[in-house]
Amino acid sequence: MKLAHALLQALKDYGAGEIFGIPGDFALPLFRQIERINTLPLYTLSHEPAVGFAADAAGRYRGTLGVACVTYGAGALNMINPVATAYAEKSPLVVISGAPGAAERTMGLGLHHQVKHFDSQMLIMREVTCAQCVLDDPATAAAEIARVLTAARYLSRPVYIEFPRDMVEADVDEVPSFKPPIKNMAAAKEAARQALKMLERKKQPAMLLGVEIRRYGLEKKVAKLASTLGIPVLTTFMGRGILAEVGAKTAGTYLGLAGDVATRRLVERADALLMLGVILCDTNFGVSKRQIDMRTSIHAFDGAVHFEHHSYAGVILEAFVDALLAGAEKLGNAKPVTAAYPRGLKPSKRKLLPHDVATAVNDFFANHGVMPIASDMGDCLFTAMDIEHTALLAPGYYATMGTGI
Amino acid sequence: MKLAHALLQALKDYGAGEIFGIPGDFALPLFRQIERINTLPLYTLSHEPAVGFAADAAGRYRGTLGVACVTYGAGALNMINPVATAYAEKSPLVVISGAPGAAERTMGLGLHHQVKHFDSQMLIMREVTCAQCVLDDPATAAAEIARVLTAARYLSRPVYIEFPRDMVEADVDEVPSFKPPIKNMAAAKEAARQALKMLERKKQPAMLLGVEIRRYGLEKKVAKLASTLGIPVLTTFMGRGILAEVGAKTAGTYLGLAGDVATRRLVERADALLMLGVILCDTNFGVSKRQIDMRTSIHAFDGAVHFEHHSYAGVILEAFVDALLAGAEKLGNAKPVTAAYPRGLKPSKRKLLPHDVATAVNDFFANHGVMPIASDMGDCLFTAMDIEHTALLAPGYYATMGTGI
Amino acid sequence: MKLAHALLQALKDYGAGEIFGIPGDFALPLFRQIERINTLPLYTLSHEPAVGFAADAAGRYRGTLGVACVTYGAGALNMINPVATAYAEKSPLVVISGAPGAAERTMGLGLHHQVKHFDSQMLIMREVTCAQCVLDDPATAAAEIARVLTAARYLSRPVYIEFPRDMVEADVDEVPSFKPPIKNMAAAKEAARQALKMLERKKQPAMLLGVEIRRYGLEKKVAKLASTLGIPVLTTFMGRGILAEVGAKTAGTYLGLAGDVATRRLVERADALLMLGVILCDTNFGVSKRQIDMRTSIHAFDGAVHFEHHSYAGVILEAFVDALLAGAEKLGNAKPVTAAYPRGLKPSKRKLLPHDVATAVNDFFANHGVMPIASDMGDCLFTAMDIEHTALLAPGYYATMGTGI
Amino acid sequence: MKLAHALLQALKDYGAGEIFGIPGDFALPLFRQIERINTLPLYTLSHEPAVGFAADAAGRYRGTLGVACVTYGAGALNMINPVATAYAEKSPLVVISGAPGAAERTMGLGLHHQVKHFDSQMLIMREVTCAQCVLDDPATAAAEIARVLTAARYLSRPVYIEFPRDMVEADVDEVPSFKPPIKNMAAAKEAARQALKMLERKKQPAMLLGVEIRRYGLEKKVAKLASTLGIPVLTTFMGRGILAEVGAKTAGTYLGLAGDVATRRLVERADALLMLGVILCDTNFGVSKRQIDMRTSIHAFDGAVHFEHHSYAGVILEAFVDALLAGAEKLGNAKPVTAAYPRGLKPSKRKLLPHDVATAVNDFFANHGVMPIASDMGDCLFTAMDIEHTALLAPGYYATMGTGI
Repeated sequence: MKLAHALLQALKDYGAGEIFGIPGDFALPLFRQIERINTLPLYTLSHEPAVGFAADAAGRYRGTLGVACVTYGAGALNMINPVATAYAEKSPLVVISGAPGAAERTMGLGLHHQVKHFDSQMLIMREVTCAQCVLDDPATAAAEIARVLTAARYLSRPVYIEFPRDMVEADVDEVPSFKPPIKNMAAAKEAARQALKMLERKKQPAMLLGVEIRRYGLEKKVAKLASTLGIPVLTTFMGRGILAEVGAKTAGTYLGLAGDVATRRLVERADALLMLGVILCDTNFGVSKRQIDMRTSIHAFDGAVHFEHHSYAGVILEAFVDALLAGAEKLGNAKPVTAAYPRGLKPSKRKLLPHDVATAVNDFFANHGVMPIASDMGDCLFTAMDIEHTALLAPGYYATMGTGI
Repeated sequence: MKLAHALLQALKDYGAGEIFGIPGDFALPLFRQIERINTLPLYTLSHEPAVGFAADAAGRYRGTLGVACVTYGAGALNMINPVATAYAEKSPLVVISGAPGAAERTMGLGLHHQVKHFDSQMLIMREVTCAQCVLDDPATAAAEIARVLTAARYLSRPVYIEFPRDMVEADVDEVPSFKPPIKNMAAAKEAARQALKMLERKKQPAMLLGVEIRRYGLEKKVAKLASTLGIPVLTTFMGRGILAEVGAKTAGTYLGLAGDVATRRLVERADALLMLGVILCDTNFGVSKRQIDMRTSIHAFDGAVHFEHHSYAGVILEAFVDALLAGAEKLGNAKPVTAAYPRGLKPSKRKLLPHDVATAVNDFFANHGVMPIASDMGDCLFTAMDIEHTALLAPGYYATMGTGI
Repeated sequence: MKLAHALLQALKDYGAGEIFGIPGDFALPLFRQIERINTLPLYTLSHEPAVGFAADAAGRYRGTLGVACVTYGAGALNMINPVATAYAEKSPLVVISGAPGAAERTMGLGLHHQVKHFDSQMLIMREVTCAQCVLDDPATAAAEIARVLTAARYLSRPVYIEFPRDMVEADVDEVPSFKPPIKNMAAAKEAARQALKMLERKKQPAMLLGVEIRRYGLEKKVAKLASTLGIPVLTTFMGRGILAEVGAKTAGTYLGLAGDVATRRLVERADALLMLGVILCDTNFGVSKRQIDMRTSIHAFDGAVHFEHHSYAGVILEAFVDALLAGAEKLGNAKPVTAAYPRGLKPSKRKLLPHDVATAVNDFFANHGVMPIASDMGDCLFTAMDIEHTALLAPGYYATMGTGI
Repeated sequence: MKLAHALLQALKDYGAGEIFGIPGDFALPLFRQIERINTLPLYTLSHEPAVGFAADAAGRYRGTLGVACVTYGAGALNMINPVATAYAEKSPLVVISGAPGAAERTMGLGLHHQVKHFDSQMLIMREVTCAQCVLDDPATAAAEIARVLTAARYLSRPVYIEFPRDMVEADVDEVPSFKPPIKNMAAAKEAARQALKMLERKKQPAMLLGVEIRRYGLEKKVAKLASTLGIPVLTTFMGRGILAEVGAKTAGTYLGLAGDVATRRLVERADALLMLGVILCDTNFGVSKRQIDMRTSIHAFDGAVHFEHHSYAGVILEAFVDALLAGAEKLGNAKPVTAAYPRGLKPSKRKLLPHDVATAVNDFFANHGVMPIASDMGDCLFTAMDIEHTALLAPGYYATMGTGI
């Protein structure tokens, strides 16, 4: 099997739906094969940061791999920012970069897209991706692709594949197919038992949902868990929109001091807070960090569950959710809460405020049905928080915003 | 002395003329000091790549340090591309990035601009700069600043300074002042002797000039050397514009197969080619690489002089030029050549071609005096090659173009 | 303060009792100061591995820092094996190596004790020590010494200090004094509560003791804990001898299939095993690994406590023992066990067996009082296991044996 | 082909004559195959440093690969010193170490020969060898063995091969056979031309020979070159014994201030010194370093030739010697010199001095023919310098001594 063919087939098998990219000399042979073989549709754009953001968003939207294909140097280095964003927000973005061929690396002339060394780009990408490979050896290429794509799926973080331009026709083995992670159910059950026991004992428990639920395709299961337990369910800022597509209601989005007081109290006054897939960063907890007592929280993230002073390593979110579901019953003290969004905009002569826009949108939704939102950053994004809970796609970078759909 | 003060004073002492930047939370305390202390003027822009390109261009224009000041994460990572360009084209760009303070690094909450680790950004910058420091220790900060700025000046490459936001008021020593590099004149003389002997013996010698001449402020000396030797003088594509400001004439710019035949022959048929400060990359030698015989060339670059099969290490360009000047005489076989640029555009009904624009500009220069050019990339830049030899500022990235002024 | 003086004073303040070493050219200036200043006694030997083993043993015996001082290259590289042993067995050995001075590093002539680079030795030592420093900067030397010696004390692992020979007279600050680690008592209490609850519920609990108890000076506290709980107490093979000096009785040493059946059952049939400071390696658990169910064990080691599927990070052994002591009561099901060692050797004509030697020693102890043992490796060491529980010093390397005193 | 078989065959093909080793658990499966397959004879010793020194000496004696096979941890780490010696003295020692198998690496229990990480040993060996591989992938094992053994032959330095114990039966390709290095004769001729021109012009030229001549099997060629040029030929201290086996006479061994005055002057007063394969370290040039003017020397070493202020990169010693031989003629000013060694020991009542022993040996050689010498270090080695020039084998470490045969 030819390497280009094997890679494209593997991308599809591991869940990618399309490729975003910009051709450039070191990537031309690969782009030619992408078009010829046509395993996945190719969308070319004109600015590498846009390629990265688009591929990231596609992956987030589908809950699977996004793919960005660019050229060496000018192409890939221009995309560091979106890849770093994807890393921070746990989006499984596959970065494929063309690269000089073996012959070019030894001809003794500096190359136009080279920085310090030929491997400088790989070393840079190592800091913003969770696994990397250079496909320069036909004997190991198939195994390397499988290793790297598996990491993208398991860890839900970006990965980097460097494709030297003279390797397009190299003969390689077929890429081993995707194997779902093994769940350590013994540990998950122990953690779930302890979590449920804690929730039962407390008076004001609540759930806070984060992006991992979307990334690992757990929205239905989590909606069912929430409905069984019957407790207030909130999303983080970066997780806004979670559960909307499965039709579940939430008590709103936690924004700390920047948000609604009632919503904030649900989180900060909870005496047991079940945090599922929540990124523990200042964007999500910002100004109010001190208000949440991690010692009365249960925090499942990055393959581990944390309680008070101890942790369960090796428990992935899906295993924990499965174990919770298996043991969950209606909590005696639980009272579900549904967020109320502003409705009923009245004609008026005063200045139109952002809040009025949100109200108008909600009125529109009430009449015509709820629709997904694509929001710009800054004020737009904050206004979007006042709109009915629905799928949300927002251009994202770190503190400024999150792409929460 | 306060650290912010010491750094700003050192930047000025080492030759910087201004600071370009975009504030951001981790860099706010430093920006406040930049404005308050006012050692160097501050120009704020709205897009980090622009900050990098502007600071790079300012440094190239002055022949000394350019300074770009940004915030951690989103700011600095957005600037990797311009920094890589500066590295490839030997421009001494000083990148200063704000960073989390010591307390923030230990509070156990991920930060919004952090990627993998707190030092990920430094590791990334290591691949596109020639020296790096993190100013987290008052005891070593002054020495570290001197080490890094000295590297920028000696090697004429970008450097990276990470400035934790809680260090602005730290008490530090004064930064040791700049010490020019020591010239190994014994080695330089041996190399110059051999170079002049080779040039004398050959029938069609020529000189090809590259960016290091501009970077190290050697234009006057090289103009004098060229005039003494009396041989044809050409610039590389990336070096276009060199000598223009000191009033010297050149035989044109070498573009390989893409350029003028007569110009090309001067280089490719030279039986002894003296290459001073020329970056040996495919952008400069592109398609025609095989036409230049490195074995009949003398190549001074990156602190070494290369002849045939041997090299003189530890000979910086200035020492070599000094030694050449000391021994140079009119070469018997030399015939200086001055490039002829198109003039005399006639009114006509045919379509206006890029070449006609160049002709019109030359006609204008003939009447009103030569002016510097700022050129866009691509066709513009190639058209600029047909314009009278003058200072040129072009937005640059790798193969696409060079900022040659 | 002169650097040599500052280092010696710091070694004493951090707990070292003497220095073992072999002078060599790069270490001569330091040795001269060690003798002149005379802060700590110096014992010179004639073979570097012996220096390493002696310093390691001294540190283990005292329960504090051992110090080995050697020359660069031939000296330090000859000691890798003992340092690796100390790392594996958690002995806080301070390795001090002379090194070339700044001038020698730049004279361009390879040095006789240099391997690849001047820092090759440091890179090698990095793999067998937990912290390293090179004292080449007077501004940071004092802080570096404190950092490295603190790591040795906190982590109880070897550290490496490289001392360039031209730095003996450098002026440095006084080294900050030792600060004991901060105990996270909230977490320790939570862990202790859970541990005691588990022990109370089970029928056949037991304690297994490892080297950390000795390293962190916890023998008295652990003896009291054992006596309060009233459960069988055993040591690991590498921990043989622990508690002997504080007069506590144990149920013997766990050797898996290689040991006594009754002893082995106490461990392998325990339904709750409290393992304090036990190195979890095949030397301690060897052939019988599968017999111990980590899921019914409580394992405190390397600053963490592990239960079933979860862990308490940031709980050092002393904090855990303190918290256990605070809550411990006599366990209802506990029956203390005291090992019986063979006594009463009879004159006989059959061949003398190793076991008979142990019996004779026990008879001798019975008449003349118990004495410490220094044992050779191999058969001797296994025979020593049949001798009355007493302080044991054994030449140690990895699987072969442990230095357990 | 089974991996153990492939490795043994490759060792033989690349020039090894035997294997020295000590079995140990992680190396047992490999040792079993070494004995069963019997491709090369196996000599087992009882102390790892001895294994390293013996294998090193065998390689030096044969002028090809020495092989040392040991176990992981305690075995390999005990051999760092001899491997470092081999590195410093350019001896191509192949270190093969057993290692834990894939299963053992993942069972979660520390291993008895492990230090920090499983790859700590490899990282340590990286500092004392010129190439390394871990044979953990059947797909790449054959290519890795070829890469590493080729490096040992080309660079004449130690290499490291890690052999996980579960890989003995892995199916691998045949190891590609040894390909001699390509000689850059164009560069070599240019360098030789310049060297011969310099030697012709000077009045007191001399040759100084170093270990590379022995390592690369060039003794016959160099003897012929010396005889053609007719100039005094000396060896370095580390190179003592070179040319003895091909029957050439030398003017003695250069020992700086420690040696004979006449011999010393030949080197230090030479106005052109041709140094072939000489290690430029303080052991060879010690106290007298300043006496040799590198600016009137020609120095061929480590694949480069250095003259005055310039260097020819990419010229291996054999290519340079070939080019010198092709152009060499009797030098007008040259006067060969043959060292006179003491003879004629007279019976006497005074104390016997080391010098008398050398005299007696020379008298014995005169009657019975010259024999090789195996010398101990220290006084013995210095005494050996007074014995007739003959093959010499000396236990070696760095400054103390060299194994010069």
